[in-house]
Amino acid sequence: VSAPYAHVHRVRFEEVDAAGIVYFARFFSICHDAMAGMLASLDGGYEGLVMERRLGLPAVHVEADFAAPLRFGDEVRIAAVVERMRESSVALRFDLERVSREGTAEGAHVATIRHIVALTSLAAMRAEPLPDDVRAAFEAYRVTPADS
Amino acid sequence: VSAPYAHVHRVRFEEVDAAGIVYFARFFSICHDAMAGMLASLDGGYEGLVMERRLGLPAVHVEADFAAPLRFGDEVRIAAVVERMRESSVALRFDLERVSREGTAEGAHVATIRHIVALTSLAAMRAEPLPDDVRAAFEAYRVTPADS
Amino acid sequence: VSAPYAHVHRVRFEEVDAAGIVYFARFFSICHDAMAGMLASLDGGYEGLVMERRLGLPAVHVEADFAAPLRFGDEVRIAAVVERMRESSVALRFDLERVSREGTAEGAHVATIRHIVALTSLAAMRAEPLPDDVRAAFEAYRVTPADS
Amino acid sequence: VSAPYAHVHRVRFEEVDAAGIVYFARFFSICHDAMAGMLASLDGGYEGLVMERRLGLPAVHVEADFAAPLRFGDEVRIAAVVERMRESSVALRFDLERVSREGTAEGAHVATIRHIVALTSLAAMRAEPLPDDVRAAFEAYRVTPADS
Repeated sequence: VSAPYAHVHRVRFEEVDAAGIVYFARFFSICHDAMAGMLASLDGGYEGLVMERRLGLPAVHVEADFAAPLRFGDEVRIAAVVERMRESSVALRFDLERVSREGTAEGAHVATIRHIVALTSLAAMRAEPLPDDVRAAFEAYRVTPADS
Repeated sequence: VSAPYAHVHRVRFEEVDAAGIVYFARFFSICHDAMAGMLASLDGGYEGLVMERRLGLPAVHVEADFAAPLRFGDEVRIAAVVERMRESSVALRFDLERVSREGTAEGAHVATIRHIVALTSLAAMRAEPLPDDVRAAFEAYRVTPADS
Repeated sequence: VSAPYAHVHRVRFEEVDAAGIVYFARFFSICHDAMAGMLASLDGGYEGLVMERRLGLPAVHVEADFAAPLRFGDEVRIAAVVERMRESSVALRFDLERVSREGTAEGAHVATIRHIVALTSLAAMRAEPLPDDVRAAFEAYRVTPADS
Repeated sequence: VSAPYAHVHRVRFEEVDAAGIVYFARFFSICHDAMAGMLASLDGGYEGLVMERRLGLPAVHVEADFAAPLRFGDEVRIAAVVERMRESSVALRFDLERVSREGTAEGAHVATIRHIVALTSLAAMRAEPLPDDVRAAFEAYRVTPADS
């Protein structure tokens, strides 16, 4: 039985915008960091995949639904799961929840974000089948249809 | 008859990632800049809307399909249109095309990105009806269903 | 006897530039994060200082000497000390050392960075004397002239 | 007689921080963009230098004095000059002035920033003599000692 990958991010001083809330594009960075964490079991981690093996996981499709803003000092918990794997691609879902701010209720739903990434040779910039170790790393976070 | 808003962005040195291509989250920033350009006809522009009137346009939903990577030095042309307006929200579509790189064909399709933004009081962080001038500014770029 | 504040940062995928090394301006962000860590003993931390008390620590002078590049996957250890405190300002020094990369020697000196920050009322955007708790938090990392 | 290179930057929505002012590290990015502009006369520009010739200009020393904050919507004018050239390195000075904000005086001095950059082979990550065309491009903005 698999479980979501849990990633925690504390909003940094520079992540907000002129409206005083976390800039929407930064949510994708936070989720990308969570994906890197899902691959920590690889030999050399996500860093080794990119720098040694010259394989990447560029996004081919992303979508996000934003439910509540984040502010400086908020802490957000990301539950990341794999919704589908195909030959080259992986569909990831990230559920973001705010876990702390004094004076507000905890556990507020913040956003649901989906990334579909494709295993890509960085030299050829062409999709390739997922290597076994990458597939296995993601498999640990796969939800069954009933879970998702 | 309305026309798309045309925005040009030249990829900057810091916009690429460890894979050597523009980091996927940065595409949303480029589109946000294009939205700011669509509001230049407002008194004080987008800046005045945020800083003087304390109204913002945070994203409530975004999605992106990425077709081709961008590299440092590429120039990308964004055609931005309004697909729908409701009482508080605006659905924007951005078609990105690479317009120049020596040695490659011009005009390659890069990405299609959609932002749904909601007019929001930044003090109350609550959706409000689109003010007339904001509605009129976006109206200039509205496509009819047949166009989109 | 005080000791440096130790902060560890692992280079993230998006922090490199088109030259394949960490973009120089990002080093200042990493040091800013270290400063936030130095203030964790404050009630509410650096976040509380900014968001609740509306006091900030904007830089009035910074300088950096870069000795070696960082790449994706590198881990950098920052030793942060306070070199001087005046009525409103604090002079911080950050020594950056690379602590891990397979195939290279550990402990390479990367950069020395100095920030002078001034305690500032964000409403008035005017310098103010350092509050006692902020002074005490920084005092823990003060080096004597002989140490620095 | 040479003149400064003039670069104009309009503060973008995402460039401010939780204190509501442009994040200090972003000033270096703005100056880096000005440097790219100084090299526009190169065949292929700064982009060609990096991407085709695999030569870069990483910073070896930077320093900044910040005099006044910038906010969203501010427009800043950068006057960039070359203070010195050596065999491999170039010392650049950037004077930043705020040129527009309704309700405030124009022309406020914002910051003085200095970058020393070294011409570097990106493959070997080793300093090399400035190529003639790069030297000539910077020469156009060199101030005599009396000017600086």
